[in-house]
Amino acid sequence: MTTVRLWSDEEAAADPAVKPVFDDIRATRKSDFVNNFWRALANDPAALARTWGSLKAVMLADGPLDPLTRELIYIAVSTANGCSYCIHSHTAAARAKGMTDAQHGHLLSIIGMAAQTNALVTVLQVPVDEAFLVKTD
Amino acid sequence: MTTVRLWSDEEAAADPAVKPVFDDIRATRKSDFVNNFWRALANDPAALARTWGSLKAVMLADGPLDPLTRELIYIAVSTANGCSYCIHSHTAAARAKGMTDAQHGHLLSIIGMAAQTNALVTVLQVPVDEAFLVKTD
Amino acid sequence: MTTVRLWSDEEAAADPAVKPVFDDIRATRKSDFVNNFWRALANDPAALARTWGSLKAVMLADGPLDPLTRELIYIAVSTANGCSYCIHSHTAAARAKGMTDAQHGHLLSIIGMAAQTNALVTVLQVPVDEAFLVKTD
Amino acid sequence: MTTVRLWSDEEAAADPAVKPVFDDIRATRKSDFVNNFWRALANDPAALARTWGSLKAVMLADGPLDPLTRELIYIAVSTANGCSYCIHSHTAAARAKGMTDAQHGHLLSIIGMAAQTNALVTVLQVPVDEAFLVKTD
Amino acid sequence: MTTVRLWSDEEAAADPAVKPVFDDIRATRKSDFVNNFWRALANDPAALARTWGSLKAVMLADGPLDPLTRELIYIAVSTANGCSYCIHSHTAAARAKGMTDAQHGHLLSIIGMAAQTNALVTVLQVPVDEAFLVKTD
Amino acid sequence: MTTVRLWSDEEAAADPAVKPVFDDIRATRKSDFVNNFWRALANDPAALARTWGSLKAVMLADGPLDPLTRELIYIAVSTANGCSYCIHSHTAAARAKGMTDAQHGHLLSIIGMAAQTNALVTVLQVPVDEAFLVKTD
Repeated sequence: MTTVRLWSDEEAAADPAVKPVFDDIRATRKSDFVNNFWRALANDPAALARTWGSLKAVMLADGPLDPLTRELIYIAVSTANGCSYCIHSHTAAARAKGMTDAQHGHLLSIIGMAAQTNALVTVLQVPVDEAFLVKTD
Repeated sequence: MTTVRLWSDEEAAADPAVKPVFDDIRATRKSDFVNNFWRALANDPAALARTWGSLKAVMLADGPLDPLTRELIYIAVSTANGCSYCIHSHTAAARAKGMTDAQHGHLLSIIGMAAQTNALVTVLQVPVDEAFLVKTD
Repeated sequence: MTTVRLWSDEEAAADPAVKPVFDDIRATRKSDFVNNFWRALANDPAALARTWGSLKAVMLADGPLDPLTRELIYIAVSTANGCSYCIHSHTAAARAKGMTDAQHGHLLSIIGMAAQTNALVTVLQVPVDEAFLVKTD
Repeated sequence: MTTVRLWSDEEAAADPAVKPVFDDIRATRKSDFVNNFWRALANDPAALARTWGSLKAVMLADGPLDPLTRELIYIAVSTANGCSYCIHSHTAAARAKGMTDAQHGHLLSIIGMAAQTNALVTVLQVPVDEAFLVKTD
Repeated sequence: MTTVRLWSDEEAAADPAVKPVFDDIRATRKSDFVNNFWRALANDPAALARTWGSLKAVMLADGPLDPLTRELIYIAVSTANGCSYCIHSHTAAARAKGMTDAQHGHLLSIIGMAAQTNALVTVLQVPVDEAFLVKTD
Repeated sequence: MTTVRLWSDEEAAADPAVKPVFDDIRATRKSDFVNNFWRALANDPAALARTWGSLKAVMLADGPLDPLTRELIYIAVSTANGCSYCIHSHTAAARAKGMTDAQHGHLLSIIGMAAQTNALVTVLQVPVDEAFLVKTD
């Protein structure tokens, strides 16, 4: 259960600060569906507008990483942070952007492998090799 | 400083359980360089062999995700887990596999965005939308 | 579902090690309500007494930070640790201590902002500026 | 060591996308000091501008939570996320905004207490009490 | 709800790559019960085989740490990583291997204590004492 | 570098609230060595006394788990929380309490295994099996 109220379509349409963001979410995604994250964020219209603006710039605008790769990275971070909602929403988004079952399986193995070696490196306290450092001159 | 001893090339070459793994790391990567992670893991040859075998299967064998994408996912998980060594080593690996500065910048923005929305979703306790659930029948 | 049994009021009242702690929780909070955390901890009366004693000293006794600020900090930590129960209980406590919707919204934006810059700093591996170090002489 | 180059004042002044952000950081903070985080982010001017814009809105603009409280919340999140740089920079910022040693000590005890009860609640898997749920009608 | 389909016994029995792993899980554990984790992993038979092989080597084969101690360590990691499923499954496994209520209570106090001091050390940024470093010569 | 001052032996001996705690640390451990954690906590004598009291009860008093097992659990939690100082101090403590190299290696493999399956379970969102739930009647 959310710690705030989820906004209905009626409430969003009646609020001059929320309406343009919900309209832009629908227009950008070419879908009438607005998921619960935005309905919860609507309680703070400034945060709603700022977060949607950043998400649009990072995840939806043109950029050097393709849309599916962006979703795979999002799932990886969300898993390490234990965000169940985010895993569900971005796995659905990755599938909508063409992720195959084989790619999903591969993603999972990479995430599991990274989690394992992260833990091993940490408990071993391995010092960074010189070869990995950025040369700045 | 590691919590175990880092094995030198001489020690590794003299140990019949460690030598074949170090040899395979060098042959597979076509490089004489063996980084500190494996030199620390060498203290437990069975763990060394098992971990290298899994890493090779997941990160280096043929698979549905390309080598650069795999490294980007690895960096994402390592960041969320706060593993400094892993961030350094896999950023170097991503660059070696062709990551441009623009792609690195994009990766960073996705990781930052995901961390932010993960936190917002968690503090809001947003319930998963029906539309995101896997249909199993 | 808990991994231990939740103690009922009857059981707590009948146990000489648990009863005084439940009595003190009720007296200190001026409320008959004892939430599930304490009913779960009751399985280990020494841990129950120690944890309640520390919580009382840190969260309820007089101190330099006011009661609402303490709850905001608690929510922030609980979010980063992904503790759903703790987010719910301390958000309710913050509201009971006067947190407005606007303050809640502001708290959320700070938590999201911190999570984002934490991730960016970590993936960038930014070195600490000299100016931030404590002077100890 | 950073995974990217830190920008010098000269480089920043010579780049038309970076210069206005560095200028605004200095003007807003009324200080010539620009810390390493922004010098690292400068490698991606769009991310630099977006992140500074959000930080300014959340941490420096007028809002319902006072400047010191915002820093205490930032330290709390940064601690739970293990971000050493962020802990140093925001502890320095909190001190600059008037945090006393007694308040710092209290903050630390709250963070430690929250981390402990977060872990206890998680390992106990305590279900959320009805009383903590938001009433949405 | 899983992000993949859970395999039934019938499906597993009909797949030549999954069947031998499910058979080995049952034979090794001397039980017909196969828990949901393996039914989810079955979607990627190579990952299923690799993960079960590692788990068997680490958790079930002879080794210097006894079976109950291994489960206590697993619960500790799973708690810090916030993995609800893992806490439930390994708490059940620990009980099956003889964990008493008193040992469970003690485990919980150690986990809570460690979480608290981890947070305190992190927010204090305590430098490692010389005495704790490994001597490597 | 710490975010607070580390107390010297002379300062601790001169402070009536800190001296008895340092004296008890030395007497309990039968050693003159007081590690940096306590020297940092000394800035808040009440927190110092409370934390030492809890640590003594949980880690040093008689209890159902033996001293070495307690240290292994502490290392596991500290690894998952990424606390470098805590990993170093408790690895040293475990060695002082008899941990062999083989046990250390086994511990590392369990921690790595748990981190991996925690991540897999989380990204798969596996539902808890009925068989793992506590029967409370």
